[in-house]
Formats: sequence, structure tokens, C-alpha cells
Amino acid sequence: MQQRSEATRTQILSAARKLFAQNGYEASGVAEICAEAGVSKGAFYHHFPSKHAVFLAILEEWLAELDGQMERLIHSAKDVPSSLLTMAGMTGMVFQAASGQLPMFLEFWSQASRDEQVWKATIAPYRKYQQQFAALINKGIGEGTIKNVDADSAAWAILAMAVGMLLQGLLDPKGADWHQVTREGIQYLLEGIKRNE
Amino acid sequence: MQQRSEATRTQILSAARKLFAQNGYEASGVAEICAEAGVSKGAFYHHFPSKHAVFLAILEEWLAELDGQMERLIHSAKDVPSSLLTMAGMTGMVFQAASGQLPMFLEFWSQASRDEQVWKATIAPYRKYQQQFAALINKGIGEGTIKNVDADSAAWAILAMAVGMLLQGLLDPKGADWHQVTREGIQYLLEGIKRNE
Repeated sequence: MQQRSEATRTQILSAARKLFAQNGYEASGVAEICAEAGVSKGAFYHHFPSKHAVFLAILEEWLAELDGQMERLIHSAKDVPSSLLTMAGMTGMVFQAASGQLPMFLEFWSQASRDEQVWKATIAPYRKYQQQFAALINKGIGEGTIKNVDADSAAWAILAMAVGMLLQGLLDPKGADWHQVTREGIQYLLEGIKRNE
Repeated sequence: MQQRSEATRTQILSAARKLFAQNGYEASGVAEICAEAGVSKGAFYHHFPSKHAVFLAILEEWLAELDGQMERLIHSAKDVPSSLLTMAGMTGMVFQAASGQLPMFLEFWSQASRDEQVWKATIAPYRKYQQQFAALINKGIGEGTIKNVDADSAAWAILAMAVGMLLQGLLDPKGADWHQVTREGIQYLLEGIKRNE
């Protein structure tokens, strides 16, 4: 039963992800999600109190995945510039994962701008990433590989570049080789904050 | 009559901008826009064939404004690094203009991801900015102020940083001093592509 219940939850989340991306959050009702998932309304409400709860669950799942990738990255590299370069090299993977998800991302941001709870769920992890990057840059300043920059600004700059590239790549997939462009962009930025030996 | 007609058009656009931002594109009908603007449906359809046309007009107006700022910038500075620094200094103005407009931006991108016509109206100018930046960077390489970087990637990097900062600032206005953070971020990036004398 536990297993079947887990499968139902997964089906609901995947149906909701599809419908939100296709038609937007507002236009996708619980009835449509149930029909797409092939589950009853009873089953739906057994798992989620509301459509809003489904939305938050999708957001949290996606953030947890990103979190895991981030943690692995930060603890694996030999020095700070190589961590940042490894990250630039990972962008291909991120683009692949995000491909076709633009409408879903926009729904996150759109809801975040209108809904306090979604806003908090979106902003809290984002601020955490910024703090992790700032800590990484302070580590680099400490180890002598990074110039004496403002670690907070540099961290926001890296995040801004990553988010901007992601948005550009999602909006205009054929506009450039986004994997290469992102890697080069991060390299230019890194060149600007790296201490030259 | 011409003057009154122009005023009606402006009222419709401003009412639509408000409603799209507040409730989203889908949820804002022609009837609501007319009520908000205080104009009749007849007056509405005299100016616009559809709600979609209103949306495109808002997008075009906003892009034309951005265009003007960009042109002035590119033709005014003494060398390429100072152009880019001037731009970094202008971000305060952009943030001020964009403040409170996040839902409207997200509507642009959201519609662009679902609607071929909006997509073209969004992507064409964006690609044009990228080409203008790439031309600026090639000019810098020519005048010896910029390293021999890939001008296309560097141009996408500048745009990505600008768009990413804008999105961060709109989503989290109190998260940082975005004016300063953007100026510093662009400076770090510029430092990475500038030829050191």
C-alpha cells in the first residue's frame, strides 16, 4: 500500500508539472490534474490539501535536487577557482535538465511574485545559494586564489550570470551554444576576480 | 479628436499593464480592461483588434524605450570599457523603472514561451542587443582595450548578468543593494575581459 501510495503521489506531481507548464497554474484545476494523472479526487486530497500544496511540493523537489548538486560541487574541488570552473562545466547538465521547463520556471517566479508562501519557498534557498557562493569566495580570498573583492557582490554576480544564461537558453534555445557560452561567460567573470599569480 | 483618441489608447495600455501585472494575462479580459480604463468596448476595438494586440503594444513600447537608452549609451562613451562602466552606472535607473514590474516581465516571458508572435517580438530585440554588445566588444578588441575574447560569448555574458541581476532585484528587492551589486558585478566581468595596460 505504501508503495502504491507513493506511486500515486508521483503521478499527481508529474501530471501537475505537465499541466502547469502547458497551460499555466491558474488554468490548471484539481479536476484536470486528476484526469491527467488518472487518479480520483479522493486520492488527490489524500496526498495534497490543495493545488497550491502540489505547486509547493514541485518547487521543493526541484530545489532539493539543485541543493544536492551544489553541495557535492562545493565539497569536491581542490581550490576555489577550480570549484567555479567545475560549476561552469556543469552547466550543460543544468541546461539539459531545465530544457523544456521554461514555462514551469516562469510559473514559479510568477507565483512567487503574487504569493507570500511561494515567495518564501523560492527566496530562502536562493539566498542560501548566494551565501554558499559568498563563503566559497571568502575561502578563495583566504587561500590567496581570489582578489580582495566584495564576496557578497561577487556571489550575486555569479548567480545572476547563471540565472541569466539559463533564462536566455530557455527562451532562445537555438540562439547560441548555451553550454559553451555559459562556460566562457563564467570564465571571464572568474578571470576578473581571480588573483593572477 | 486625434488628441482624445491618443489619450484613450494610453488609458487602455495603462489599464492593461496594471491588470496583467496584478492578475496575469489569462485572467484579465477585455471587459476588465475597459472597466479599469473607463472606456467602452467600442473604443477598445477602435484601437486594438484584440487583447493580444494590447499585450504586443505594451511589449513594443517597453522595448522601444530600452532601445533608445541603449543607442544613446553606445554612441556616447570615449572607449569601450567606459561604455560598459557607464552602463553599469545606469542600472540604478533601470531598477527604478522596472521596480514593481516583475509580474509584467514574467507575463512577457510566459506568453513568449507559449505564443509564437510574442516570442518573436521578445527574441528579435534581445538578439539585436546581443549583436550591439558584440559589436561594441569587437570595437574594444580593435582599439586594444579589450582582450581577444569571443565577442559573442562576452556579449551574452553581459546580457545574462544584466538580466539575472534584474530578475534577482525584482524577486528580492530587499535582498541586497542591487544598484551597487550590479555595478560591481559588471566591473568584475569587465575586469576579466579588459586588457591590462
